Amino acid sequence: MSEMKNADQVRLFALNSNRPLAEKIAAQLGMPLSECTVSHFADGEIAVTINESVRGCEVYVIQAVAAPVNSNLMELLIMVDALRRASAKKVNVVMPYYGYARQDRKARSREPITAKLVANLLEMDKIDRLITVDLHAPQVQGFFDIPVDHLMAAPTLVQHFLDKGFGDDLVIVAPDHAGVNQVRRFAELIGGAPIAIVDQRNDDNRATDSAPMPDMVIGDVKDKVAIVVDDIIDTGRRVATSAKLLKQFGAKEVYAAATHVVLSGEAPQVLDDSELTKVVVTDTINQPADRQPEKLVTLSVAPLLAGALARIHNHESIHDLYKLQK
Amino acid sequence: MSEMKNADQVRLFALNSNRPLAEKIAAQLGMPLSECTVSHFADGEIAVTINESVRGCEVYVIQAVAAPVNSNLMELLIMVDALRRASAKKVNVVMPYYGYARQDRKARSREPITAKLVANLLEMDKIDRLITVDLHAPQVQGFFDIPVDHLMAAPTLVQHFLDKGFGDDLVIVAPDHAGVNQVRRFAELIGGAPIAIVDQRNDDNRATDSAPMPDMVIGDVKDKVAIVVDDIIDTGRRVATSAKLLKQFGAKEVYAAATHVVLSGEAPQVLDDSELTKVVVTDTINQPADRQPEKLVTLSVAPLLAGALARIHNHESIHDLYKLQK
Amino acid sequence: MSEMKNADQVRLFALNSNRPLAEKIAAQLGMPLSECTVSHFADGEIAVTINESVRGCEVYVIQAVAAPVNSNLMELLIMVDALRRASAKKVNVVMPYYGYARQDRKARSREPITAKLVANLLEMDKIDRLITVDLHAPQVQGFFDIPVDHLMAAPTLVQHFLDKGFGDDLVIVAPDHAGVNQVRRFAELIGGAPIAIVDQRNDDNRATDSAPMPDMVIGDVKDKVAIVVDDIIDTGRRVATSAKLLKQFGAKEVYAAATHVVLSGEAPQVLDDSELTKVVVTDTINQPADRQPEKLVTLSVAPLLAGALARIHNHESIHDLYKLQK
Amino acid sequence: MSEMKNADQVRLFALNSNRPLAEKIAAQLGMPLSECTVSHFADGEIAVTINESVRGCEVYVIQAVAAPVNSNLMELLIMVDALRRASAKKVNVVMPYYGYARQDRKARSREPITAKLVANLLEMDKIDRLITVDLHAPQVQGFFDIPVDHLMAAPTLVQHFLDKGFGDDLVIVAPDHAGVNQVRRFAELIGGAPIAIVDQRNDDNRATDSAPMPDMVIGDVKDKVAIVVDDIIDTGRRVATSAKLLKQFGAKEVYAAATHVVLSGEAPQVLDDSELTKVVVTDTINQPADRQPEKLVTLSVAPLLAGALARIHNHESIHDLYKLQK
Amino acid sequence: MSEMKNADQVRLFALNSNRPLAEKIAAQLGMPLSECTVSHFADGEIAVTINESVRGCEVYVIQAVAAPVNSNLMELLIMVDALRRASAKKVNVVMPYYGYARQDRKARSREPITAKLVANLLEMDKIDRLITVDLHAPQVQGFFDIPVDHLMAAPTLVQHFLDKGFGDDLVIVAPDHAGVNQVRRFAELIGGAPIAIVDQRNDDNRATDSAPMPDMVIGDVKDKVAIVVDDIIDTGRRVATSAKLLKQFGAKEVYAAATHVVLSGEAPQVLDDSELTKVVVTDTINQPADRQPEKLVTLSVAPLLAGALARIHNHESIHDLYKLQK
Amino acid sequence: MSEMKNADQVRLFALNSNRPLAEKIAAQLGMPLSECTVSHFADGEIAVTINESVRGCEVYVIQAVAAPVNSNLMELLIMVDALRRASAKKVNVVMPYYGYARQDRKARSREPITAKLVANLLEMDKIDRLITVDLHAPQVQGFFDIPVDHLMAAPTLVQHFLDKGFGDDLVIVAPDHAGVNQVRRFAELIGGAPIAIVDQRNDDNRATDSAPMPDMVIGDVKDKVAIVVDDIIDTGRRVATSAKLLKQFGAKEVYAAATHVVLSGEAPQVLDDSELTKVVVTDTINQPADRQPEKLVTLSVAPLLAGALARIHNHESIHDLYKLQK
Repeated sequence: MSEMKNADQVRLFALNSNRPLAEKIAAQLGMPLSECTVSHFADGEIAVTINESVRGCEVYVIQAVAAPVNSNLMELLIMVDALRRASAKKVNVVMPYYGYARQDRKARSREPITAKLVANLLEMDKIDRLITVDLHAPQVQGFFDIPVDHLMAAPTLVQHFLDKGFGDDLVIVAPDHAGVNQVRRFAELIGGAPIAIVDQRNDDNRATDSAPMPDMVIGDVKDKVAIVVDDIIDTGRRVATSAKLLKQFGAKEVYAAATHVVLSGEAPQVLDDSELTKVVVTDTINQPADRQPEKLVTLSVAPLLAGALARIHNHESIHDLYKLQK
Repeated sequence: MSEMKNADQVRLFALNSNRPLAEKIAAQLGMPLSECTVSHFADGEIAVTINESVRGCEVYVIQAVAAPVNSNLMELLIMVDALRRASAKKVNVVMPYYGYARQDRKARSREPITAKLVANLLEMDKIDRLITVDLHAPQVQGFFDIPVDHLMAAPTLVQHFLDKGFGDDLVIVAPDHAGVNQVRRFAELIGGAPIAIVDQRNDDNRATDSAPMPDMVIGDVKDKVAIVVDDIIDTGRRVATSAKLLKQFGAKEVYAAATHVVLSGEAPQVLDDSELTKVVVTDTINQPADRQPEKLVTLSVAPLLAGALARIHNHESIHDLYKLQK
Repeated sequence: MSEMKNADQVRLFALNSNRPLAEKIAAQLGMPLSECTVSHFADGEIAVTINESVRGCEVYVIQAVAAPVNSNLMELLIMVDALRRASAKKVNVVMPYYGYARQDRKARSREPITAKLVANLLEMDKIDRLITVDLHAPQVQGFFDIPVDHLMAAPTLVQHFLDKGFGDDLVIVAPDHAGVNQVRRFAELIGGAPIAIVDQRNDDNRATDSAPMPDMVIGDVKDKVAIVVDDIIDTGRRVATSAKLLKQFGAKEVYAAATHVVLSGEAPQVLDDSELTKVVVTDTINQPADRQPEKLVTLSVAPLLAGALARIHNHESIHDLYKLQK
Repeated sequence: MSEMKNADQVRLFALNSNRPLAEKIAAQLGMPLSECTVSHFADGEIAVTINESVRGCEVYVIQAVAAPVNSNLMELLIMVDALRRASAKKVNVVMPYYGYARQDRKARSREPITAKLVANLLEMDKIDRLITVDLHAPQVQGFFDIPVDHLMAAPTLVQHFLDKGFGDDLVIVAPDHAGVNQVRRFAELIGGAPIAIVDQRNDDNRATDSAPMPDMVIGDVKDKVAIVVDDIIDTGRRVATSAKLLKQFGAKEVYAAATHVVLSGEAPQVLDDSELTKVVVTDTINQPADRQPEKLVTLSVAPLLAGALARIHNHESIHDLYKLQK
Repeated sequence: MSEMKNADQVRLFALNSNRPLAEKIAAQLGMPLSECTVSHFADGEIAVTINESVRGCEVYVIQAVAAPVNSNLMELLIMVDALRRASAKKVNVVMPYYGYARQDRKARSREPITAKLVANLLEMDKIDRLITVDLHAPQVQGFFDIPVDHLMAAPTLVQHFLDKGFGDDLVIVAPDHAGVNQVRRFAELIGGAPIAIVDQRNDDNRATDSAPMPDMVIGDVKDKVAIVVDDIIDTGRRVATSAKLLKQFGAKEVYAAATHVVLSGEAPQVLDDSELTKVVVTDTINQPADRQPEKLVTLSVAPLLAGALARIHNHESIHDLYKLQK
Repeated sequence: MSEMKNADQVRLFALNSNRPLAEKIAAQLGMPLSECTVSHFADGEIAVTINESVRGCEVYVIQAVAAPVNSNLMELLIMVDALRRASAKKVNVVMPYYGYARQDRKARSREPITAKLVANLLEMDKIDRLITVDLHAPQVQGFFDIPVDHLMAAPTLVQHFLDKGFGDDLVIVAPDHAGVNQVRRFAELIGGAPIAIVDQRNDDNRATDSAPMPDMVIGDVKDKVAIVVDDIIDTGRRVATSAKLLKQFGAKEVYAAATHVVLSGEAPQVLDDSELTKVVVTDTINQPADRQPEKLVTLSVAPLLAGALARIHNHESIHDLYKLQK
């Protein structure tokens, strides 16, 4: 268990988006969640009341900006406004999932950069620090001028595979061109596995054909156990298609691993219908029980976040959080 | 019809919250609405694409921040981010209804001032001007440092009653203590009518009793036609209760008049079941056809807004918009 | 007596506008006022020198922005500049009276919002907190993004009337349409009295006529003791006229109660010549002895401010300051 | 006469501090002063109303920040707030005299830098440009990030002496150590005269003694016509003492020349009683007729300012304003 | 040739880092470069003087932030300060190469994000627009809130290969994991070629061994013509090693293509000694004649930049700049 | 020796420009310099890594912005970015020499004010405090809004002359018109010596002629020991020429004293060839051993800076640092 110094001058608040994770973090820290009321009116307006004094306190607000993204973001912005006006000493935002992170650049003319807009909204609101997990692009850290503690869930995911005895005939697979860096790091962490890439293109309908093109998987996957690594699983189609292709190219078995599970629309069904054996993810986003695919294995980032919060609060280094047990 | 100069360097955009009003405004101005695509993903994330060049253009974005408030606000913020990055010359926001305007002060400890937060979000996003209608408190103008054109719907509402031949035995009634100033101005505008006040208190259950207390209506309403004037009709209970009390105190007939109709939850039924004869409002907030009470009379603010936009754009005074025809 | 923790790292400064109140506050806190020299040259330029070290200190500067308003405001802005450059840790401004607060909205075209300008000047100067009493509109709190502790003098005023044995046949009266909310709260506090409104209009000369119009007082005041409640008494004409009308409408006796007394020009005479029995106010603004009307009863807000300062400094809640002794 | 292009989209406003100069500038530009009402209440609060539309206009506000300095500064800040909210396109401040300019550095611990505070107040208020004359230190330009047009009155003053036929046996004298640079430039401008320095010290009472110390004037002034050059004449004592010393060291005749005349307190008498022949100054600060010393010769900077305004407005260079006619 | 409208109100300045490119851009636009003097003192201090009026002008400053990076960045920041103070209407920075762009995230604890620092410096200096070419990561656009026009050199490079008749047996190769996205786009542009990846790791010494590991090139390159595509060629080692490996894996011939050539230290020799046939690059960074490898083929981005400047200035879309001639 | 309280929460870093001085300061404080790596790539890009945790620490970064000025400034800006992102509590910059300080005003049209630009860069980077020595103009303090501790080296220099027994027949000489104030203060400090001025003009070639003009030295220097006092010795020509003139006007012996020695180009030879006896300076700028003139006497400001750092850190007054021992 991690512990915060001067805990009587600390307040831990959970807003509505991922209360189960917040409760686990609080339990790990041996602290209660402080009381606040966040209510929604019929037209969507949010009213926040903080039910205990925060004057002079170091405050941590836990809120994933997941579905419904806009409402959860506004809950956070309003809460911060209230905390600041109530004379909190510092407001630290713990955001296990950073919504809109995928809109991090202008891919076409006249597009917004909404991930930067979110950063601007938070900085304008005068938060003192952001603690987050696996940003879609590490450059999003640079959207902020305040300190950002950017935590990695990869060791948590890798430890799971190591514990299960994986390791010898693995290949780590990127489901598209953008994630190869991340896949290379995952492969190093798991012990130096080779990598492969599913060469899917934006306008690509080939994966649905019976016979895949020979250049659709780059790298050798034949007779190997493949782990498709992504940062976010949203509709599930990218990992499902990757699994299908990898099987066609000779993979023995295919797993998916990802930090964040958005699981939009038909995603639970897509995953359960896929050729994936298991989909290993974390609880940065809360999934209602009735939308959890059977293949889903959910690991908790609560130990990671609680450990980080305690070290950050106590002004200690957070490096030792990432040690793997092999 | 109002007309904008140099119209080829002007772009008028409507986001999703009140497209019918935007279309009326565009028609009044004799201009098309420019093309933009505002889509919502399953988790609520909004994607904006602007489908024509705005380089060097004076842009007007029409968006009421009404239900769903948070989503409509984010649509607006994202659109502005996109416009600015796309080199629009000026971004003018036309907000017929300013959501969260009622959260304009700290009524209790540790409350946010969300109306100011909204102002900060818009200023951070670098809008150049706000054009809005009947803010809940006129002080909200001071939440901004950019120019705010604050339009009044009262003349539109008053004209309706004048056209119907009201005037002689009127009393203008404030449904609570906060709106007396507004009621006094409405009374002047309609020709100098007396005013009265329904003295409802926050914790007041007396109105539901059979016999009203003698001090619940202040001012003389006996045998008069009462118009209860409010800025926002939300649940409808305040005007409905006022109507009941006014009848008990002898009013011949009771009307309600308001600029904005939020109509949360049971409000349509509450209004239709009330002792109000008619509820005269404007179209600053779009109401779906199936939620419109039968007693609702909706006047359009499109002529007001189009007139204001043309005058503002052409650098002319907007005073003459308010002339009543008696 | 209230006490501040770590008092050796606290500095309490009084500028020139209301030194008697500052001395009372210091006495209540059991602390000395720190030494600073604020001199004025012939052309009005102000020179400030701070005569003791403030490095690393929590500083409280007491200054009412009352007549001469501009000079007192500049004293404050210059003092804050000096404190910041002298490495004060935090600069808290205690402003018993917030000048220009009545210019809080654009009532007509091309007006400034000077109350916001004052807020901007203070925030630009990087004050850390504002502690003030009874802002003309509570929305002015939202003109700031820093914490504002907004104290209420109403309990102090109400306690005075309770101590004098008032209570049974009271009516609380608003002297115009804007203050009804405030009057309603005063009436609740004093034990649930009914309210009435003097319906004076801007262009109204009727009050000077011998026979008042029947609709000039709304609500029942006959044979009652009326307390006219306002936030500021400036020229005194509004309360004096109200007293005259209330007497004409049958009131037995009329008192005025207000937080701030500006007392411009002929005001002392106007009050003494009026039909008011007493004018009960506080010492947020310092009145020279030769300008105090005989009818004036001045209560001190020093206990309120000292209590608030100690609680704010010690990070405690300020709620218990407002308990009435009945 | 200088002329502004597109004059119908220009507004020239004069506030209260130096209306005669503003009228001369307007006359030079062939334009009227626009109408605004700037009134002062009994407690010093200022109310500004702008009486004609400024939407989309390039506005020039003329205001010297001279006695009463604080009130004149607030007039300016409030006017700018009103102009910005009234949708002026650009707000250019014409400040012939920059008050507080002498408080431009921390000479001792815990002093403010009020000249920077004034700059911050103006920039916070979002003025677009400052046009000013002879800042006490040229570094004050760097207190701003907006464009500052810093005009020099020296050519105006020098031209006066040239026109009077001065030139051969001149010595230009600095009345203290700080102004030697300025004196050197004045000497170059007038045709290459030698310079001298009055070595007065802050705590120096020696000048009042009958016999001056031999090192109190540095440089040769014997049998010469001395012009003591300063930027501001405030109490008049520095130039008067200098004149006395210079006579004691053998000067034939002594003149004073300065851009700004503050003339505090006894200054008019001090100057008339001095051994100065004439005191040549400009009208950057308005002096009431009854406070003008007989020895005062006042030159107008209106041609300089009008010429600068026209060139700035028309985007032309302002260099040719400074040509001397010898 | 591209042309700017209202060219008399436009100024084009070149600072010292890439004057040959600036001259080509000016020639393409049919405009002269305006005169400015940028001198360096012995201690490195830079002095800038602008030799013609820029009042009211739209200014474009061309400066690559290449070696010496810090000096070239300061030249730019100082020039912008001078332009702003000289009343330029808009300052547009044309930065063909964005120095420090590779430091775009915190890869390890306690690292700076210098690419963001550079963005902050430019925004603090109040530039109005940035025009740049091929940022190392597209997210760097989001480091800015001002409009960024992000141009692509890929079509220029691809056109060169198309003109030379390449196309049938091509494979486009990423020299590491980070650039796969870019390589995929290049492959699409050149007509749909397959891709491959050189799987080099940071701590990898294997490439220097005689026998490469079988997993060091992912994808099929045998008997193909390989184009190694990178954004920056700095030491040249990455592309040289890639060429060696590709030959070992059976590639017929290997080319390198890159937008920016830094060519640090031994890079010219490294390239000439490598198994690369040609290294095709652009002139975003100026290379002195004596440091140009013989294998270097330099294409000019002047037509791209001139075309973009004209379109941006004239408020036209820049899309048609990218049309390939096949 | 000076000591800092809570030294375990303090970090002292030295960047590359004046490490010998930093080591002396650290020795005086009895503290180690913390570890950081500041490396420069071939193109000039700087990489900073901080090798120990700074979370929650009060950090002092010592860096003179001397030659190479731009590189040293960027080292500092990048280091501050890294420290802020690494959660340092406060970042204090100790800048013994403030580069670009001489560019503190617009002397001509279209010049930058680079000393203000440097201040803006540092404030944008969010440093908390600047500690510096003898700014070229004291007004540069006002370029900052954060606290600036401006230390004086004059007492250190004066003490040296007092220790050597100077005093009776001294004259303190300003080498041009701008520094007379500084010379007057130096003369007071050394015991009330008279002053003189070398009247050099910008375009002045007269000093090289055999016979000096009679007005080139103002004040009496005959048979005196002259100390020419300047703030910066750069090319050395100004003090060397002054020495030559002073000898021609009869001075017995001439010394130079200055805080900062830039020593550009031929300066070491110029000084050694001059008629100066000694050139007494401080070590605010590090001079390589092979560029030190033989006449140079270098005093260390380490005791001054260490004393100031300890007092500032411990929230004590820094006045007693300046006591002279006579």
